Formats: sequence, structure tokens, C-alpha cells
Amino acid sequence: MFGLSFRPRKANTAQTAKERLQILLAHERTDGSTPDVLPMLQRDILAAIQKHMKIGKDAVDIRMERGDELSSLEINIDLPNSRGNGQGAES
Amino acid sequence: MFGLSFRPRKANTAQTAKERLQILLAHERTDGSTPDVLPMLQRDILAAIQKHMKIGKDAVDIRMERGDELSSLEINIDLPNSRGNGQGAES
Repeated sequence: MFGLSFRPRKANTAQTAKERLQILLAHERTDGSTPDVLPMLQRDILAAIQKHMKIGKDAVDIRMERGDELSSLEINIDLPNSRGNGQGAES
Repeated sequence: MFGLSFRPRKANTAQTAKERLQILLAHERTDGSTPDVLPMLQRDILAAIQKHMKIGKDAVDIRMERGDELSSLEINIDLPNSRGNGQGAES
């Protein structure tokens, strides 16, 4: 497989306590002949997440890299804290 | 952010040419008080992928790790080769 690994943030110091969700996708192809599904998956996965939690548009940071053999998509989402500001409640 | 990184496989030697899709999710919480959304997202993301491509149940390998501050979900999918065996065609 690809061999991804997570490295958690360092312990919070004085920064605002926030929740984050990070999604990484890698599509590995043997050649460049097959369609790149990552743009479609990006849309669907964001929709799936929004079913479960409210996220603002400016809370989402997306980076995509496309290559012949490996395309990758990174989605970082700052989640509203479930306590405190009240924006995180599911309607 | 978390600082994930992709490392592509080494070049194919004699192994069967296959396509792979890998999805990594990390949910970082400031404490253990908020619900873990990863199991729900796992189901929804797999459904989203299946909208775009046919995947067999035994082609999916899922690993989840749950902790107070960081839960992670790793989904590895062997995709049917779009050429050759004909199983990859979308109906």
C-alpha cells in the first residue's frame, strides 16, 4: 500500500481549542489511462461530512496534486467546537 | 495541521498491475467529549466511492484507531483494473 502515516499536533499551548478533521485520498494508478476520480470524490465526501456536521466554506482547505501514477487530495476542515460558540450543533 | 504525507509504492516489479485508492481520515479533538464521527463517515465515504466505481467487499481493508485526542481511519481499496478483467466497468 501507500504507507501513509498520521502525526498528531503537538500539545495545545495557548491556542484556541479546535477540532479538526483531515481527509487524505490517494489514487494510485498503473498508468495515466484511467480517469482521475478524486475531484468527484472530493465533492461527495464533503457532502457526506456535511450530513453529520456543519462546516463553513472558509473552514475547508483543499489541496490536490495530480500525476500520472499517483494523484492525491488533502482536505483539512476546522470544525466548530461543539461547546462554546454553538455553531456546531446539528440542525 | 496533522502533517500527513503520502509515500507512493515502489515501482512495479512482476506484480499484477493494480489500481488502489487509499483514504485516510483523522479526527482531532481537544478532549474526548465530542462524538467520534469516523464510523459514520466510513460508511458514507464508501457509499460515495461506490457511486463512481464498483468495488468488491473483499477489496476493502479498513483499520480504525480511536483515542481521546486523535482517532484515525484508514481505508485501502483495491480497484478492479479498468482494462483486462472487465469487472471494473460501471454498469
